[in-house]
Amino acid sequence: MAGAADIELAHQLADAAGAIARRYFRKPLAVEAKPDRTPVTAADREAEAAMRDLIARRFPEDGMLGEELGATRAGAARIWVLDPIDGTKSFIAGIPLFGILIALVENGVPVLGVIDQPILGERWLGVTGKATTKNGDAVRTRACAELGAATLYATSPDMFGADRAAFERLKGAVKLTRFGADCYAYAQLASGFVDLVVEADLKAYDFCALVPVIAGAGGSITDWQGKPLGLASDGRVVAAGDPSLGPKTLAILTGN
Amino acid sequence: MAGAADIELAHQLADAAGAIARRYFRKPLAVEAKPDRTPVTAADREAEAAMRDLIARRFPEDGMLGEELGATRAGAARIWVLDPIDGTKSFIAGIPLFGILIALVENGVPVLGVIDQPILGERWLGVTGKATTKNGDAVRTRACAELGAATLYATSPDMFGADRAAFERLKGAVKLTRFGADCYAYAQLASGFVDLVVEADLKAYDFCALVPVIAGAGGSITDWQGKPLGLASDGRVVAAGDPSLGPKTLAILTGN
Repeated sequence: MAGAADIELAHQLADAAGAIARRYFRKPLAVEAKPDRTPVTAADREAEAAMRDLIARRFPEDGMLGEELGATRAGAARIWVLDPIDGTKSFIAGIPLFGILIALVENGVPVLGVIDQPILGERWLGVTGKATTKNGDAVRTRACAELGAATLYATSPDMFGADRAAFERLKGAVKLTRFGADCYAYAQLASGFVDLVVEADLKAYDFCALVPVIAGAGGSITDWQGKPLGLASDGRVVAAGDPSLGPKTLAILTGN
Repeated sequence: MAGAADIELAHQLADAAGAIARRYFRKPLAVEAKPDRTPVTAADREAEAAMRDLIARRFPEDGMLGEELGATRAGAARIWVLDPIDGTKSFIAGIPLFGILIALVENGVPVLGVIDQPILGERWLGVTGKATTKNGDAVRTRACAELGAATLYATSPDMFGADRAAFERLKGAVKLTRFGADCYAYAQLASGFVDLVVEADLKAYDFCALVPVIAGAGGSITDWQGKPLGLASDGRVVAAGDPSLGPKTLAILTGN
């Protein structure tokens, strides 16, 4: 369970990371390639360091797992899972669809999630057992019971590797497919404007924060076997605004 | 040549269309499919009608060509080319990367262009012979002489049809490829954060406004043969922030 102190800290983390992201956005910025060839900047590193510092001061027993700075106290019961800039490729292209992702994972289960877009000033907060909010107002996913009526998002067709054929089958079954939004597509799903987000090759820091946001807005989010997402999930994600779309999507993806 | 009265009208058009787009954005909205299966909403139609009304009152002799309401006085020397919401698919998904596109085309040549993002409050204005501005401040493309260092954008890999193999060759030659931004990718190219936008299957109302914006920011924009874009172009577009990238890109696309 995430308590009031956890929610308060999550807001402080998003505020701190957002201030750093805004300072670097659309400024000349050295872009380095990480060993996995994805880009990273000083903005990513500084934003994560600022969040880790706040967590360590407030909850020194808690663990942390971040995209840029790795794991600390990985065996702790409570682990803060951080992606300081999800969508670094958008960030460096001047496109404000990146997001700060913050999750609190308790005994392997995400219980609090934040998706924050610091340029647009939009923050989605999901807490297990509560209604998801955007800037304090409750949001809900929309009904969409048929794949043929669904709007599907994925960040890129190139993220699927060996699962590309499965994704193409799904693309053929939905009404509309769009690319390129990273975490912002999940946020719009929570707000009722997107029906499906299906991705692969994600890391725990990419998806843990999404889980409470989408569940608390009335949607479903699982791996491609329909199992709940946790730290050990394989990085394949199906988020459905209308939970009845989830099994239909899984059936297409697995060819059953 | 676009004069002060043309620039003034262009701002009025963008203001009028933007007010309508903001009123409909993220509101429940009936989405219809056009004969070409692309989506259209009341927001598209009302925004275009408002712009046409302003043009007809100010310059009754001028022609108009709009995405939703077609051609009027198509033989006029001056034609206003309008896309009320470029990126309707983003618009209906709640994602603020759509844009209002306004061009003034004189004797077949685009001489004024506006790319306006009414949710973010960003407006790029290009006028032949003048420096392109964003919200009044001059913008410049950035230097990037090598394809291997370039960030490439396209709205979707599915827009290329028979040219898909050519696009995939280009994708293999650049540093980073991203999808999904419609006109906003060209705007970020003008501002120096994106190096290449390569697309196909565009219509005159999709690309005429881009031409003065990109040329006035120091970039190049042509069809896939390297020819200037005009009303009769075939809808294949190469925009390069660094003009020396243009011929290199064309060589890859054409396999020469």
